[in-house]
Amino acid sequence: MAQPIEQADDFLWDEQPEEACGIFGVYSNDEDCNAAALTYLGLYALQHRGQESAGMVVSDGTHVSVHKNMGLVSNVFNRDILDGLRGRIGIGHVRYSTTGSSLLANAQPLLARCSKGMLAVAHNGNLVNTEDLRKELENGGSVFQTSTDTEVIMNLVARHSRENLADAILKAAQSLKGSYSLVIMSKDALIGLRDPYGVRPMCLGKLADAYILASESCAFSSIGARFIRDIQPGELVMIDRDGLRSYHLPPAPSQAICIFEYIYFARPDSNIDGLNVHMARKAMGRELAKLFQHEADVVIPVPDTGLSTAIGFAEASGIPYDIGLIKNTYVGRTFIQPNQALRDMGVRIKLNPVESVLQGKRVVIIDDTIVRGTTSGKIIHLLREAGAKEVHMCVSAPPITHPCYYGIDTSVRKELIASSHSVEEIRRFIGADSLNYLSLEALYRAVEPKEGLCVACFNGNYPITIPQEESRDKFLLEE
Amino acid sequence: MAQPIEQADDFLWDEQPEEACGIFGVYSNDEDCNAAALTYLGLYALQHRGQESAGMVVSDGTHVSVHKNMGLVSNVFNRDILDGLRGRIGIGHVRYSTTGSSLLANAQPLLARCSKGMLAVAHNGNLVNTEDLRKELENGGSVFQTSTDTEVIMNLVARHSRENLADAILKAAQSLKGSYSLVIMSKDALIGLRDPYGVRPMCLGKLADAYILASESCAFSSIGARFIRDIQPGELVMIDRDGLRSYHLPPAPSQAICIFEYIYFARPDSNIDGLNVHMARKAMGRELAKLFQHEADVVIPVPDTGLSTAIGFAEASGIPYDIGLIKNTYVGRTFIQPNQALRDMGVRIKLNPVESVLQGKRVVIIDDTIVRGTTSGKIIHLLREAGAKEVHMCVSAPPITHPCYYGIDTSVRKELIASSHSVEEIRRFIGADSLNYLSLEALYRAVEPKEGLCVACFNGNYPITIPQEESRDKFLLEE
Amino acid sequence: MAQPIEQADDFLWDEQPEEACGIFGVYSNDEDCNAAALTYLGLYALQHRGQESAGMVVSDGTHVSVHKNMGLVSNVFNRDILDGLRGRIGIGHVRYSTTGSSLLANAQPLLARCSKGMLAVAHNGNLVNTEDLRKELENGGSVFQTSTDTEVIMNLVARHSRENLADAILKAAQSLKGSYSLVIMSKDALIGLRDPYGVRPMCLGKLADAYILASESCAFSSIGARFIRDIQPGELVMIDRDGLRSYHLPPAPSQAICIFEYIYFARPDSNIDGLNVHMARKAMGRELAKLFQHEADVVIPVPDTGLSTAIGFAEASGIPYDIGLIKNTYVGRTFIQPNQALRDMGVRIKLNPVESVLQGKRVVIIDDTIVRGTTSGKIIHLLREAGAKEVHMCVSAPPITHPCYYGIDTSVRKELIASSHSVEEIRRFIGADSLNYLSLEALYRAVEPKEGLCVACFNGNYPITIPQEESRDKFLLEE
Amino acid sequence: MAQPIEQADDFLWDEQPEEACGIFGVYSNDEDCNAAALTYLGLYALQHRGQESAGMVVSDGTHVSVHKNMGLVSNVFNRDILDGLRGRIGIGHVRYSTTGSSLLANAQPLLARCSKGMLAVAHNGNLVNTEDLRKELENGGSVFQTSTDTEVIMNLVARHSRENLADAILKAAQSLKGSYSLVIMSKDALIGLRDPYGVRPMCLGKLADAYILASESCAFSSIGARFIRDIQPGELVMIDRDGLRSYHLPPAPSQAICIFEYIYFARPDSNIDGLNVHMARKAMGRELAKLFQHEADVVIPVPDTGLSTAIGFAEASGIPYDIGLIKNTYVGRTFIQPNQALRDMGVRIKLNPVESVLQGKRVVIIDDTIVRGTTSGKIIHLLREAGAKEVHMCVSAPPITHPCYYGIDTSVRKELIASSHSVEEIRRFIGADSLNYLSLEALYRAVEPKEGLCVACFNGNYPITIPQEESRDKFLLEE
Repeated sequence: MAQPIEQADDFLWDEQPEEACGIFGVYSNDEDCNAAALTYLGLYALQHRGQESAGMVVSDGTHVSVHKNMGLVSNVFNRDILDGLRGRIGIGHVRYSTTGSSLLANAQPLLARCSKGMLAVAHNGNLVNTEDLRKELENGGSVFQTSTDTEVIMNLVARHSRENLADAILKAAQSLKGSYSLVIMSKDALIGLRDPYGVRPMCLGKLADAYILASESCAFSSIGARFIRDIQPGELVMIDRDGLRSYHLPPAPSQAICIFEYIYFARPDSNIDGLNVHMARKAMGRELAKLFQHEADVVIPVPDTGLSTAIGFAEASGIPYDIGLIKNTYVGRTFIQPNQALRDMGVRIKLNPVESVLQGKRVVIIDDTIVRGTTSGKIIHLLREAGAKEVHMCVSAPPITHPCYYGIDTSVRKELIASSHSVEEIRRFIGADSLNYLSLEALYRAVEPKEGLCVACFNGNYPITIPQEESRDKFLLEE
Repeated sequence: MAQPIEQADDFLWDEQPEEACGIFGVYSNDEDCNAAALTYLGLYALQHRGQESAGMVVSDGTHVSVHKNMGLVSNVFNRDILDGLRGRIGIGHVRYSTTGSSLLANAQPLLARCSKGMLAVAHNGNLVNTEDLRKELENGGSVFQTSTDTEVIMNLVARHSRENLADAILKAAQSLKGSYSLVIMSKDALIGLRDPYGVRPMCLGKLADAYILASESCAFSSIGARFIRDIQPGELVMIDRDGLRSYHLPPAPSQAICIFEYIYFARPDSNIDGLNVHMARKAMGRELAKLFQHEADVVIPVPDTGLSTAIGFAEASGIPYDIGLIKNTYVGRTFIQPNQALRDMGVRIKLNPVESVLQGKRVVIIDDTIVRGTTSGKIIHLLREAGAKEVHMCVSAPPITHPCYYGIDTSVRKELIASSHSVEEIRRFIGADSLNYLSLEALYRAVEPKEGLCVACFNGNYPITIPQEESRDKFLLEE
Repeated sequence: MAQPIEQADDFLWDEQPEEACGIFGVYSNDEDCNAAALTYLGLYALQHRGQESAGMVVSDGTHVSVHKNMGLVSNVFNRDILDGLRGRIGIGHVRYSTTGSSLLANAQPLLARCSKGMLAVAHNGNLVNTEDLRKELENGGSVFQTSTDTEVIMNLVARHSRENLADAILKAAQSLKGSYSLVIMSKDALIGLRDPYGVRPMCLGKLADAYILASESCAFSSIGARFIRDIQPGELVMIDRDGLRSYHLPPAPSQAICIFEYIYFARPDSNIDGLNVHMARKAMGRELAKLFQHEADVVIPVPDTGLSTAIGFAEASGIPYDIGLIKNTYVGRTFIQPNQALRDMGVRIKLNPVESVLQGKRVVIIDDTIVRGTTSGKIIHLLREAGAKEVHMCVSAPPITHPCYYGIDTSVRKELIASSHSVEEIRRFIGADSLNYLSLEALYRAVEPKEGLCVACFNGNYPITIPQEESRDKFLLEE
Repeated sequence: MAQPIEQADDFLWDEQPEEACGIFGVYSNDEDCNAAALTYLGLYALQHRGQESAGMVVSDGTHVSVHKNMGLVSNVFNRDILDGLRGRIGIGHVRYSTTGSSLLANAQPLLARCSKGMLAVAHNGNLVNTEDLRKELENGGSVFQTSTDTEVIMNLVARHSRENLADAILKAAQSLKGSYSLVIMSKDALIGLRDPYGVRPMCLGKLADAYILASESCAFSSIGARFIRDIQPGELVMIDRDGLRSYHLPPAPSQAICIFEYIYFARPDSNIDGLNVHMARKAMGRELAKLFQHEADVVIPVPDTGLSTAIGFAEASGIPYDIGLIKNTYVGRTFIQPNQALRDMGVRIKLNPVESVLQGKRVVIIDDTIVRGTTSGKIIHLLREAGAKEVHMCVSAPPITHPCYYGIDTSVRKELIASSHSVEEIRRFIGADSLNYLSLEALYRAVEPKEGLCVACFNGNYPITIPQEESRDKFLLEE
């Protein structure tokens, strides 16, 4: 018999795996290049990767300025602040906390003075040996003012006081275990580095003479820059007066691009490692359609990530695509559930059914994941209330059975419904007439990866070894 | 020869007709009814109707409380504030300024003490004889502290010091010219009133024993209330201990529901005067498809209002629906254009093309309106840059040739490109391969109104006479 | 036997009678006159009269601007706000609430449009027939959005729609009962009005060609203006293009300048109705010295109001003046008592003894009033702890036995320790070795008033009749 | 001939030497001891030593919490924040920047994790070898995120990873050159350290079983604690479960307590190194009286620091003490000079004369220092305008001829009027009838120091060697 499933009260915002930071960098030799303006626009385009804090550091070659704060890009910066950030070189960061608590002190980029002069670092990813590294550095006299991986990386680089900057970073990187896409800035250079597994994306663009680095290519589009190429796993690019040079870390046994960038994280208009995200999702939808054994009248997405997938599903299945759920675009982090009694209407605040689309219909509903199952259950209940005759749930990923240690907040294992329940149990729990997960094979067919993918959350095959006791709660500076 | 068309720099946020207020009311006899919580959720669902300010007034039958401020519902209220708003009767308002300048003093509901005791008023619409009424009231000794229509209405009601509340409101209403949907609250009653033309919507719902009034039915859905019926044009509903009673103003010569509620304003899941908005838009899309004379590979919406229409178009035309433009959902009112040089990338910040969908394709793009034409031009340019071979623009409304005086900010006439240019001139200006507007007849076929519509912005037939010199700039209290 | 005396917990900030508003006005014909800057500086100098909110209205003759907010003058205004307040005519207000609750809506000046055009009013004082006037106006159709006397006055003026402004104000004034010093502003004129009893002060100054009105002459000093004369009780001054003209209300049976302006409210450098406040206090000190029957080593003031009095006392008695208590100048309204257990150290946070001055000494301590007696008790305890051998309390006023209805918050009668206890009982309660109050006769000798004083709080002879049920809690708009 | 003297426009707030930080610490073994509440009250009492930022760190023995921000103690903390700061051990800091720019990042205490576990440091003073130490630490791999001396001290301590905490601090201290009074906190201990010269004060108190450390004894008075003794120059006190233990740094060649603590910084009710500040100032006043050769009618202080001195002067000279200048207590850091034209009234905003005291009088005015001379000139002008017949300026310190490097912002040498002008030149510049400075000998007579004083600003004899190029602008992290 299946173990009882607990319903969490605060399901509304927690069901989705949380995003995990976006990074951006710009280097130009042109004094007139407004690095702050470009970084601002770039971060705007990457806002979906992190809404907790935003920040940037810029340099005019001599003088370094920084501004960061809690909140969205649009709240953190204003015209006066941007006008005060003068320079032709810049890096920026939007953050959702994966390690470190939610403090201003943890906002990135981190700027400091060290043996390399002024240095700024912004990080997307998650190290798995942070605590070991921090202990070792402390024994050598290092002082830590935040609980971020970024500060550990900064200290490792600073220790190599005799090497030049690129060498120091490459040496420091060899101590790092886990996922990391980094943009690093000195007074007169921009560096990009992607870990050898390539877990998190990073790509290179150009705008006139300026080089641009970004987590996703959608940031290029928003500033009118051209996409040049993806940064390769294990590649360090050093950009300065002498142009761009590439260095390489020792290769990893395999590559392991996070599959969730395609399924959920990235914006549909981004291309990651050669594949457009929207197209990948449509392909997932077509694969889902192949699996689908029922008759239905309409296919509807759970907005917004289900949209591309549902179009692919409709195309392949011939079942008409329609809008059955309206998302309230004003519901954000600051929404409060005003009182206990109204809690149970939860999902209604965020999603509302279009009755005239659903009434009397056999409905296929497309979502990207089921984490704990509670939100799916509520959505299906909503559709039935609105008159849906049948509700068939199709999920564009296999069951999530294992937690992620490389930067996605898929929580601890016991909260993952699929880690302890069969598909049939989950179907009954969420109240669907049928439930289809995409198989790992079908997912591979859809994505057609040129390189290896990290699919550890589906099968537990972690490409990078996880220390026994790694936990993000170990070191908390509280405020 | 066509007169030259000026390009405005600040086109990005100004092209769309601005929304014009949402109102909400709740009345329960149950002491445990949390009117503030319900109003909060209701305003959340109506947020698309106004983002400038939000406010509510509640009463426990004896004691009246108010809170309002500039900003979104989520910013104006927090748990402490909601906890302090105790009562079983409430009204709320979200506002985008149509008359009155953008001041806190102008935020609604307006709460005051007068011959009727404590009274609160919230208004959606726009009077056209405000200045005459205000002058007359001033001659009688009235004092005006804001520049809102609402304060004029409040003063008119207060003048009828001998009548009971319902009679006083009905008498006051007979002086009002223009559009008005009102929720009014005393310590122990809730009143709803819709002008005889029915320009702005209002509907009635029930949640357990509580009566609910709202601009749109989507607000019922978000609190789990049942839709009962639309408030009829010219109807006053008085809700108190004795239940709900209806009163009626003298009927207008015709009804004149604002067509733009269907085209642009209302949420797709709302039903207005018997018609679902999403379905109305799909029907507009089908009508547009009938007009479309070209071959094309893909039909894409301008998000978000084009979505429903594009699905209808795709359905009727057989041209596949796809996502060709991604909207950055984080771009809001606080976005700043960081510097002059980057201005020309304007629309890129808000919309980005999905190249893999557009490359080499003949594209049909669906939008709801063309006001000044500059944004349409930028979008078409964007699509071509992304590889579209042909771009056919289809608009789900006739050309806007006349300004609105009843609550929609379609600006002054000279800014309306269609008021002085032919369709062919506009097509050339925006750079489309073809341009199709929906005809007024086709629009009527799509909407199938049971009652009269106001389509004055398309043909200048204003159902309510406009005073010669009415202007919203006449009376400004500045801060 | 004496009835038990209750000790209030929140004694720290409540013992002192609260200040009651400062007003300021400026009129110049010179376009270059910066009325906002002058008003800002004038309000700064009057800040001691009210710290709850600050505001100003200015006019350039055509265009009227307003800014007001909760907080100190220095927090409410900044350079940008002052730059936006353009004009050569202005009025300003600092407020401590005497009527009306502590809301932004109640901040002054009140600006509105009425039959007189744009009108702004700022009020120092307290009407005693507010509720009657408001009821009467409501019956005539008036609407009240605040709970201030000022709004009642504005409505009364607005009712006289046929009269010119001066006449309308004079007619309105004849309905007012209570204390009022008013500055009123239209687009092109400045008016000052002082009630016939002259309860609150107001004086006239000149700076180059500009006329200045202010609650106290210290405001002239801070802007470099010359003192011209006091506004007479019952006088209205109208200042416009035609210069300054005086009008007079029917005279009151007597004049009744508030004695507390001399004892406690006003700044020592101000001259009120012909008498310098510092000199008046020194004279009170000399009178106190005549009464004092004991031997002592040192006379020390309770800062800050006791300073002038203590110098006078020292001079007349020959007992050396010294500083025995240091006031923490950073303790203000925002101070919080961090926890229950620390409450009992209360007065220590605000006042600290200078042990080396007090050790082994017979100390005379000079304070301006004893309201509830709790603070005096704590201070005396503090002095003894610091080594004082004897503590003799001298108070520069007679016992306060009656509440004030004209603008000073001396609270309700039962909280006034002297209303139910003898001097000997109070001496024992506060723990003094002796306690001397100034007699009413001695106070008159010190002040030597040319006109009548209001000393109702000492003897209950209220010059203006108090309606039976007047209470400031009657009408509260809550937020 | 004397070189021309420039008048600075922004003289108003800059004339006074700026205060230089206050520190506070508490240690109790009692779980119920509310370290945050005590630290809050202690910082309140020390607020005069720094108004730029405030902060505290507390520990319950296991868990460490921190809160700091820009602004006054009353603005930085509120009840919720204090409730969140749980613990029985705490340190706090109020800051006026002497090194490091005015940034939140530079606010203290600094909290970090290092080889000693969690460590927090708060510093009053100024190191003169900061840059050398930072360079050396950088070469060893240290990373600096602020521009404070405190971070350098923290890193030095962290380097001694093998020593216990007291030893590590003592070893680190031996590298420090300059002035430093430090409170340091680990999870379970409180440490106080005063530099061997004893430039800045620190004293020890007890409240029940709790040990208290504070910059000045006035902090004890405000929490009801007993003064135990001054911390000796070069003494480290370690307070933990085992009680209090003292350690000593190698003694300095001499002691050098900053004379300005007595003249200007400290609160009159504080006792520093055995001497009460108020008494010291009265003694300075008596010494000044001995020097004074003229006849006069009244002696008045420049508030607030001149008060004690003027009383001493009056006592010794027999010239009556009076209040001739009223200080506007609401003028603070946020005051803005509203426009250019009003600038020249400068000092009038802060100080206003009491004409009735000054009219026709020969006035002695007592101030603590003359830095640039501009403010003194304005004050004398004000007194003459108010009718003073003669103005004799007496200054309770010798001429300031040399800048301070140990924590007082007496600016660069060229701004010090006395560094390049004779007393007679200064007298003429400020427009006084006579000008008397206290001689160094008289000052020593007044203070009667048991140990050496630092009087370098008067005679250039710096007790601690100043590196050639030390400047506080070397290292700036900008925001």
